[in-house]
Amino acid sequence: MQDKNNSDPLVVGLAGFGTVGKGFARILEENQAEIFRRAGREIRIKKVLVRDVTRARTQALPPGASFCADMDELAHDRDIDVLIELIGGIEQAERIIRQALDAGKHVVTANKALLAEQGEELFALAARKKLFLGYEASVCGGIPVVQTLRESLAANRLTSILGILNGTCNYILSAMTTRNMPFAEALKEAQDLGYAEADPGLDIDGVDSAHKLALLIRLAWGVNYPFRKLPVSGIRDITPEDIMFAREFGYNIKLLGHAYMENDRIEAGVFPTLVPNSYLLARVGHSYNAVRMEGNAVGSLFMHGLGAGELPTGSAVAADLLEIARGGKANNRGYTSGALPAADILPPETASARHYFRLTVEDKPGVMRDVASIFADNDISIHQVLQKGQSRTVPLVFMTHKAKALDIQNAAKAIAGCAFASAAPVYYRVLPPPGGTD
Amino acid sequence: MQDKNNSDPLVVGLAGFGTVGKGFARILEENQAEIFRRAGREIRIKKVLVRDVTRARTQALPPGASFCADMDELAHDRDIDVLIELIGGIEQAERIIRQALDAGKHVVTANKALLAEQGEELFALAARKKLFLGYEASVCGGIPVVQTLRESLAANRLTSILGILNGTCNYILSAMTTRNMPFAEALKEAQDLGYAEADPGLDIDGVDSAHKLALLIRLAWGVNYPFRKLPVSGIRDITPEDIMFAREFGYNIKLLGHAYMENDRIEAGVFPTLVPNSYLLARVGHSYNAVRMEGNAVGSLFMHGLGAGELPTGSAVAADLLEIARGGKANNRGYTSGALPAADILPPETASARHYFRLTVEDKPGVMRDVASIFADNDISIHQVLQKGQSRTVPLVFMTHKAKALDIQNAAKAIAGCAFASAAPVYYRVLPPPGGTD
Repeated sequence: MQDKNNSDPLVVGLAGFGTVGKGFARILEENQAEIFRRAGREIRIKKVLVRDVTRARTQALPPGASFCADMDELAHDRDIDVLIELIGGIEQAERIIRQALDAGKHVVTANKALLAEQGEELFALAARKKLFLGYEASVCGGIPVVQTLRESLAANRLTSILGILNGTCNYILSAMTTRNMPFAEALKEAQDLGYAEADPGLDIDGVDSAHKLALLIRLAWGVNYPFRKLPVSGIRDITPEDIMFAREFGYNIKLLGHAYMENDRIEAGVFPTLVPNSYLLARVGHSYNAVRMEGNAVGSLFMHGLGAGELPTGSAVAADLLEIARGGKANNRGYTSGALPAADILPPETASARHYFRLTVEDKPGVMRDVASIFADNDISIHQVLQKGQSRTVPLVFMTHKAKALDIQNAAKAIAGCAFASAAPVYYRVLPPPGGTD
Repeated sequence: MQDKNNSDPLVVGLAGFGTVGKGFARILEENQAEIFRRAGREIRIKKVLVRDVTRARTQALPPGASFCADMDELAHDRDIDVLIELIGGIEQAERIIRQALDAGKHVVTANKALLAEQGEELFALAARKKLFLGYEASVCGGIPVVQTLRESLAANRLTSILGILNGTCNYILSAMTTRNMPFAEALKEAQDLGYAEADPGLDIDGVDSAHKLALLIRLAWGVNYPFRKLPVSGIRDITPEDIMFAREFGYNIKLLGHAYMENDRIEAGVFPTLVPNSYLLARVGHSYNAVRMEGNAVGSLFMHGLGAGELPTGSAVAADLLEIARGGKANNRGYTSGALPAADILPPETASARHYFRLTVEDKPGVMRDVASIFADNDISIHQVLQKGQSRTVPLVFMTHKAKALDIQNAAKAIAGCAFASAAPVYYRVLPPPGGTD
């Protein structure tokens, strides 16, 4: 490959021909003229790896390409310069990426799970071989957040990242917010429209957001935050009632990945969060993604776009490929140093934030006194209270001042154990973040 | 310079030590550790070109640097690898950039006026010499819109760019909108706070926005749109009344640079524009900048951040410098081809858009009939009308359907000539754009 002239066509092996693979191939064909003007050379798909060649034959192939089913064939094909991995999952994806790098081929992938869970070895291998390992498509689809953190904000000390990183969750929460739908109904609609998988767990339980957050933390601070250590909670328990109460206080509920650098330690997690309506993040509707980054030089930078879908994600895959096509030096992680250090993690239970706290209690004398005592005992100071409804059990909603996560959990446990509590309390974080005005 | 090892310090000559120059130097010093980790080498300012060395001496110099006043000294200093041009203006800036490129030095500049008015020759020179000519700082300060159009969206056919490209104008319009201030008062406040120059013409008449728009058009479509041909109008004539009427129709007034690609022709300009409240662009407050790009693969992509100020702009200068420090190949314009073709420009008078139209008329019978006839004669169809007030002269506000710019101008002239018109009509464009739902 090193022998190749920079004006020779760049030859691609495409692993996976699902939504994103097809979108990418379509972009390459439809925008051929623009791509040629920018890359200065032709980009050609030679082989498409699929599980079942016979079944795949019914589908339109990229011009000049052929299907193959042998996992090892792309790495062994000497014509291929770049492997594009879009099969997903961990084991097989890891194997073909490793093979490709070993064979001296650049790699582009949209595989956030693989890079979050065991990316470091692959990045190290790519660095040793001086090869590109592009992954713009793995975080927020068409939003160039990888490029931005890696290059555009490279002279900043970053102080925070806040992101709506999962379009499925945002679609569901937006439907619940604007159309007052219960969670199950909104999920069903998202599934019917193709925004959510039949097994939606990775999305709605926050795992997909956590994968992306781990990658953003690595880019922002050049450290490894083990994905398994990220505190994560999803959106299954959010009710239209919560959304309504949040609105009365001036907030929208969003599933937010957040990471703050405080006194050289990282506080991070994925949680449903009440976002003030004055924030652009609160206005992110439908299945859009958005990321708000803050740095000591740039101030705040907010980006909003389509985080999934064949064309936006294909656009990000193609952007990485064009960088490879132009030649130049790989800057995969944004750091020239070798192995990245482990993140210095602020223990999640000591993280401090304002909280929204909803109880369902019997409407009888003494309840407020008992709840207030539990809050006081756990060092939680109350900012606002809201009580509504007239039935036997009523919702009782608190907005707290900043309180430690452990104190919030303990208070919730204590309240759940009280006779007057007719359901376990529900609590969510509230922006502004630590350091913001409170 | 070619002899230098990639781990040797990168030596900078800094031309200009005003707001941005100082901000850049401060970032280099304060974020030294982060920058070193990302660049893999030290970055050092050796000389700072100022007009008056004696006066400059009262100011803190970057560590190890010295002041100089000889324009030619930076280009002749063999130690210097990169010239950073922050003196502004056209002639002197052009001279020192040209000298630096001739001497084989990379260049980073924030000079939008120079690059918009005569950038092509400088880009051609940089291309011949295979040198970087970075200009992220020249458009929207800390928002990485140059990088995004040049690389992240490189596989797209762009369909439109809409931008709030001038923070001074946005500050003034935001103050007028949220605090009901007249223009002159808001301008005065912006000047007192340092958001506007003593001579604010470049900002409030839209010229600065037009410079930036010309650069964005070049990046988006790889063509040269002569800056002088861009239709431009500023914000001097906007009244609190206009802002109030716009709000009643559901819009905010913003100074927008826009460019649409329609049937292979570019329709572009800088105009006060009514932006629907549902758009994120309508929510851009204070002195923030924002850009909304749309491509056939990525869909819509919106970015929001600080478009001016020492640190955000310094952050963008430093990002370009880090790209140079890492080595690699320059991709200044985003196109590998040589000279870029001239833009195929849709004649501005044939551009079609919805319009807001405010007349000040005597309140007497027959006026509405006469105005309606003039609109009909000029092929303008009316969507909504609003009449308010009870004095002798009253404002009469129309929202039109899509109409050609020339027809709008002719109707305005005809109305201005009528006896019942007590002031010249005021008219502004209304989003959504051509192709949007109307």
